[in-house]
Amino acid sequence: MGLIVQKYGGSSVADAECIKRVAKRIMETRRAGHEVCVVVSAMGDTTDELIDLAKQVSPILEGREYDMLLTAGERISMSLVAMAINSMGGDARSFTGSQAGVITDQSFNKARITSVTPGRIRAALDEGAITIVAGFQGVSETTKDITTLGRGGSDTTAVALAAALGADVCEIYTDVDGVFSADPRLVPTARKLHRLQYEEMLELAASGAKILHLRSVEYARRFNVPIHVRSSFSQHEGTWIRAKEDKVEGETVEQAIIAGVAHDTSEAKVTVVGVPDKPGVAAQIFRTVADAELNIDMVVQNISAAATGRTDISFTLPVGDGRKAITALHKVQEAIGFESLLFDDQIAKVSLIGAGMKSHPGVTAVFFEALSQVGVNAEMISTSEIRISVVCRADVVKDAVAALHTAFGLDAESAEAVVYGGTGR
Amino acid sequence: MGLIVQKYGGSSVADAECIKRVAKRIMETRRAGHEVCVVVSAMGDTTDELIDLAKQVSPILEGREYDMLLTAGERISMSLVAMAINSMGGDARSFTGSQAGVITDQSFNKARITSVTPGRIRAALDEGAITIVAGFQGVSETTKDITTLGRGGSDTTAVALAAALGADVCEIYTDVDGVFSADPRLVPTARKLHRLQYEEMLELAASGAKILHLRSVEYARRFNVPIHVRSSFSQHEGTWIRAKEDKVEGETVEQAIIAGVAHDTSEAKVTVVGVPDKPGVAAQIFRTVADAELNIDMVVQNISAAATGRTDISFTLPVGDGRKAITALHKVQEAIGFESLLFDDQIAKVSLIGAGMKSHPGVTAVFFEALSQVGVNAEMISTSEIRISVVCRADVVKDAVAALHTAFGLDAESAEAVVYGGTGR
Repeated sequence: MGLIVQKYGGSSVADAECIKRVAKRIMETRRAGHEVCVVVSAMGDTTDELIDLAKQVSPILEGREYDMLLTAGERISMSLVAMAINSMGGDARSFTGSQAGVITDQSFNKARITSVTPGRIRAALDEGAITIVAGFQGVSETTKDITTLGRGGSDTTAVALAAALGADVCEIYTDVDGVFSADPRLVPTARKLHRLQYEEMLELAASGAKILHLRSVEYARRFNVPIHVRSSFSQHEGTWIRAKEDKVEGETVEQAIIAGVAHDTSEAKVTVVGVPDKPGVAAQIFRTVADAELNIDMVVQNISAAATGRTDISFTLPVGDGRKAITALHKVQEAIGFESLLFDDQIAKVSLIGAGMKSHPGVTAVFFEALSQVGVNAEMISTSEIRISVVCRADVVKDAVAALHTAFGLDAESAEAVVYGGTGR
Repeated sequence: MGLIVQKYGGSSVADAECIKRVAKRIMETRRAGHEVCVVVSAMGDTTDELIDLAKQVSPILEGREYDMLLTAGERISMSLVAMAINSMGGDARSFTGSQAGVITDQSFNKARITSVTPGRIRAALDEGAITIVAGFQGVSETTKDITTLGRGGSDTTAVALAAALGADVCEIYTDVDGVFSADPRLVPTARKLHRLQYEEMLELAASGAKILHLRSVEYARRFNVPIHVRSSFSQHEGTWIRAKEDKVEGETVEQAIIAGVAHDTSEAKVTVVGVPDKPGVAAQIFRTVADAELNIDMVVQNISAAATGRTDISFTLPVGDGRKAITALHKVQEAIGFESLLFDDQIAKVSLIGAGMKSHPGVTAVFFEALSQVGVNAEMISTSEIRISVVCRADVVKDAVAALHTAFGLDAESAEAVVYGGTGR
């Protein structure tokens, strides 16, 4: 007996059949004696269809009205889920983000949750009802306008409600069995991870793993909300995401050193060629990019060629922002005095993530040996305490991911500590 | 310069092109110097599509969740209209029924507006903005649940907002040029009516004319809101609906005696055969029907056959309620002691409406002469001060409507006072 928050994504409520299956699952959880608060995304392609409609009437896809438009999708799915439950004899009540007390700042299209006051949810739960909440949306504290949390925001809604309600777990339902050691479409031997630390999931999400929205994991870590990522199409245990120190009952296997391999083909590389190698120039370049509201990811500055006194600076950013970056930089070319700009969208980023690598030397060596054995050249490198990322050509991403997956013993179940055991090679 | 409330129905905002045309029209009204508050219905078939979805997940098409579902349609259309206006350089802001202050009772699916507190609308208008409001929906005063006003409720939203804001006119935009003297699909010579009294429009709406929702006219009469029904596809003047005493500038033609002919093929007739002709029996029958929450329209009791001491009672009701009525009456057959039940869905109701008939004798005679000349038999008759209705066979409805339309001089523009002028024939 406890309080469970469940979040069902768009593919889990894609049509009437899916909705009925989800309703049945929610009923089972309620009948097992738990209090249940459900967060739903819009059905399947609804949000994309609304965006298409918006494009037909306006070139400006942002702002107050656009947010209002997009929130219709979750309103539809949440009421259908509630109706399905009620027709099975349950007592379900649906709530918009606003009704559920999801308070945000005023940043339309990418609002941040500032507080959650789930008084109506708590009251409905106290009456024994199942509560269904529209994900992805809230209401701004100051103007009472409807806001959206940005793509994938339903994960954040679920975690934020779980934190505010003091839920025992936030179950994130999706169409796969959990978080995998690599994308199974690229690596058929990828396996489901049983547990991850928040930090690992954060790095995975930031490195291209699509399974959870980055901000939802940040939120879960901050409020220590246990997340259970699992499939709405099976009863299998999925992947638990918790703090490092959390003990899970019956868990005896040592935490793996490496969690998995992530990849991301959604970025492009911009190279500023022939930059005068003197203090302040790099700052000028990144100020220009920041002023254009572009989020850059990796940065590399080549060693200066002594003869010319010039260097090259490369950075990566979402491929969709490439044009904006080039335009902004061209405007300051004369002022900064660089020679030219290169744009390359045929890149991929491959990342190895594992909290265990902090205390195990030699991970970096194995990493680059594995890549070189399949002829993958690392064009850019970036690391954190628990991650190594490289940029390579897009057409070798599969080879790179597979080679790393094998080299770190992720292919075979539970074998990671054997193949790679901190031997320092 | 004034305050204009405009309501656009589903066919006026059916797709992106329609929405852009509506946006342009709204902009023109604003540029002419008026304050503008717009009420929109859901796009085209959106509501029907939502109902189809609901049917797939639940057999129960009513209640809190169903209302929440249906309100999504107006949320979509209102934000698209606002986006279209903003992309043309206007300043439009959309508001849900709840945000617009449309307060209702707690009757889901057929809520009644109890008050309108349009503070946010007034504030936005004061800032020069165009306000776009979701029709058909409100929020219940006690539970803060979202409610809907029933089919056609957007008309009522528009009139209620016009009353609360003190608007100069409530323009109802539709896909025809106004209110006609008969359905043009049945009577090609039907003509647009320039003005009607509230009472006439009430009788027309109650008699099958689909152009305005009955409750919106009741609301307009109560608060004396002038309604202008017109086409969103042309710039023509439409039909003005006002109080009898309202003078319209430049209007010299005397108000016509007969406004028009309406018909309704959506009802069925139930006959209770062989009812004991004694006091209280009819009351028992209609109590049974009322307890089943069925709205009956016309009632006829035949003259009792002296020999048997029994009579027949017939009444009409929406054809969809027929099964419910028969079931309810069968249950009390023994207690009441009637002989049998007849159900007939091949009927039509034809009505002649005109405030002028109050003071003109002979209308009834012309009415029945016209019907008899085309061989139409009146099976049931009902009258009010400004209306005569008959039930006839469904397959002669066109003949009946056309005959009445001609007999009362409605075919030729402005000729009604000539052909029928209270001559008492």
